[in-house]
Amino acid sequence: MAQRGEFQIIERFFTHETFGAWKSQGVGDDCAIIDTGAGRLAVTTDMMALGTHFLPDADPEDVGYKALAVNLSDLAAAGAVARAFFLSIGLPRRDDGWLADFSRGLMRLAETSGCALLGGDTTRTPEVNGRHAPVTISITAMGDLPAGMGLTRAGAKPGDDIWVSGTVGDAYAALKCRWGHWDLMPDAQAACFARMDRPTPRNALGEALLPLAHACADISDGLLADLGHILERSGVSAEIDWESIPISLALKSLTIAKQHEAALAGGDDYELVFTAAPDMAERIWAAGLATGTPVTRIGRITEQSARNLTVRDAQGLPVVFERAGFDHFA
Amino acid sequence: MAQRGEFQIIERFFTHETFGAWKSQGVGDDCAIIDTGAGRLAVTTDMMALGTHFLPDADPEDVGYKALAVNLSDLAAAGAVARAFFLSIGLPRRDDGWLADFSRGLMRLAETSGCALLGGDTTRTPEVNGRHAPVTISITAMGDLPAGMGLTRAGAKPGDDIWVSGTVGDAYAALKCRWGHWDLMPDAQAACFARMDRPTPRNALGEALLPLAHACADISDGLLADLGHILERSGVSAEIDWESIPISLALKSLTIAKQHEAALAGGDDYELVFTAAPDMAERIWAAGLATGTPVTRIGRITEQSARNLTVRDAQGLPVVFERAGFDHFA
Repeated sequence: MAQRGEFQIIERFFTHETFGAWKSQGVGDDCAIIDTGAGRLAVTTDMMALGTHFLPDADPEDVGYKALAVNLSDLAAAGAVARAFFLSIGLPRRDDGWLADFSRGLMRLAETSGCALLGGDTTRTPEVNGRHAPVTISITAMGDLPAGMGLTRAGAKPGDDIWVSGTVGDAYAALKCRWGHWDLMPDAQAACFARMDRPTPRNALGEALLPLAHACADISDGLLADLGHILERSGVSAEIDWESIPISLALKSLTIAKQHEAALAGGDDYELVFTAAPDMAERIWAAGLATGTPVTRIGRITEQSARNLTVRDAQGLPVVFERAGFDHFA
Repeated sequence: MAQRGEFQIIERFFTHETFGAWKSQGVGDDCAIIDTGAGRLAVTTDMMALGTHFLPDADPEDVGYKALAVNLSDLAAAGAVARAFFLSIGLPRRDDGWLADFSRGLMRLAETSGCALLGGDTTRTPEVNGRHAPVTISITAMGDLPAGMGLTRAGAKPGDDIWVSGTVGDAYAALKCRWGHWDLMPDAQAACFARMDRPTPRNALGEALLPLAHACADISDGLLADLGHILERSGVSAEIDWESIPISLALKSLTIAKQHEAALAGGDDYELVFTAAPDMAERIWAAGLATGTPVTRIGRITEQSARNLTVRDAQGLPVVFERAGFDHFA
């Protein structure tokens, strides 16, 4: 939620003084964390469109899977247990084959994640110059948190280790291949395509991190962009070691410049980037093992307030990169 | 939620055996009513698009107001206290003037109703033949319910009175005027336009009805269609008296055939239609007075299971009408 760089639109037009009986930590994190009086909820919402977030001819089963996966990933970043989601779908016309495939991808992930579809709305998308607009999907997902708990981007502390789950950059490499800009061997390409089309939301890891981590975000905009959000919200700086960043064998077959681009600036991985006190390291490795999720320490949070992010190579020299995430309205 | 006639799509593709820790009464009502363990929530979601639900050149302040109003109306139909909502908005381009007006209409209603915007997502709408698709808005709204309570379409009982709030048919008459199909005097037209562009969600009444009514729905598809949903879900039949149906002075200036069409089949009024035991009548009138909402008894629930809906005129003869609500995919 709100992780795709539209911060200015949300801050300028949709951030107001809070009011009402439910208290939230405010707009601008992966999830809203809400105290309802009866309990604590994490809620996230994402809107996706064929042609913007998915290729127009994307496999509808992949579309259904990924539409839910990106929302589950936001709940994972908060450390919440995914419980329920609501689906709104705008369709150009009733296409039963497309709907059946979409539903299959969506509901399989819902069932394996224990996150139930509890409501929705369908509508016809409007016409543009006599042609219907593409499919638009909006999902709002909700999860449980224990009282007083919940991971946000705001808790990173100087001295924290910085960690990342899985590997980063594969989804971006896949997109580059699908556009015909990059080349990968068939096996490597298939591995990257699977990461782009069927990302694994890290919910079990996120739940395990809830008492261990100080700050957490999912990687939707890119490692540097999403870690950058943590630095901004926490008022801290960071150094990360290029050599420590977990990169797949597929990505390692590319030039170092492409590796930098994919791993540092490429989004859509839906891994978690999080910070924790150094004395938590053993428990975090154990959490990775227990949940079947690789976790790698890639750097550290440095002094307060400067919000600088430095990537160093094996010789300790700064890696030059374009620090930018994905922004629909940039 | 799910009130716009897309029942077949939802039943066929998105209704599955329930699973997970949160229990809901199931898809197909204005709201999902969910037991989270910690408490009971009502949740609804609606997707709207300029060009389908709003005229392409609609006043953005009206669009913002109405986008939230239709969701608040779903919470009202459940008897829930509106607490929070989440907004996803797909925009063709960043248009600050449009966003400022949209936000003003949205946030004024949010503040007066105590329903806080706690999160959202913005995205760029895709292109169709080189032109951006229109603005798409998805809102998910949430409310509180006391344990074990919540109005649905399923509780109507033989012998119940049938009630409706406010007046019905004005929004439909306004649409007919805007299309140039019907004519109204300027004052009557302005009154109907206000009802279409700025419907009043009946939340205070809905909350007051929670311990009084057996079944409730909001009128989004039309009086007969939404009462029909109550009959279907409750397995009962109904008779209503045409002469009792509350109709505005503006509508009364039209022919009787147009009055029938607007009041019986016209949607978009966002009034409540509800049923209650006859001995609740005095308390329901009192609830209407206390909340400043006119309430009118228009008929009664008859024998179990036939699901017939009869409208009788002053002579007791059946009124002939087209029993149809609005269905995007019909």
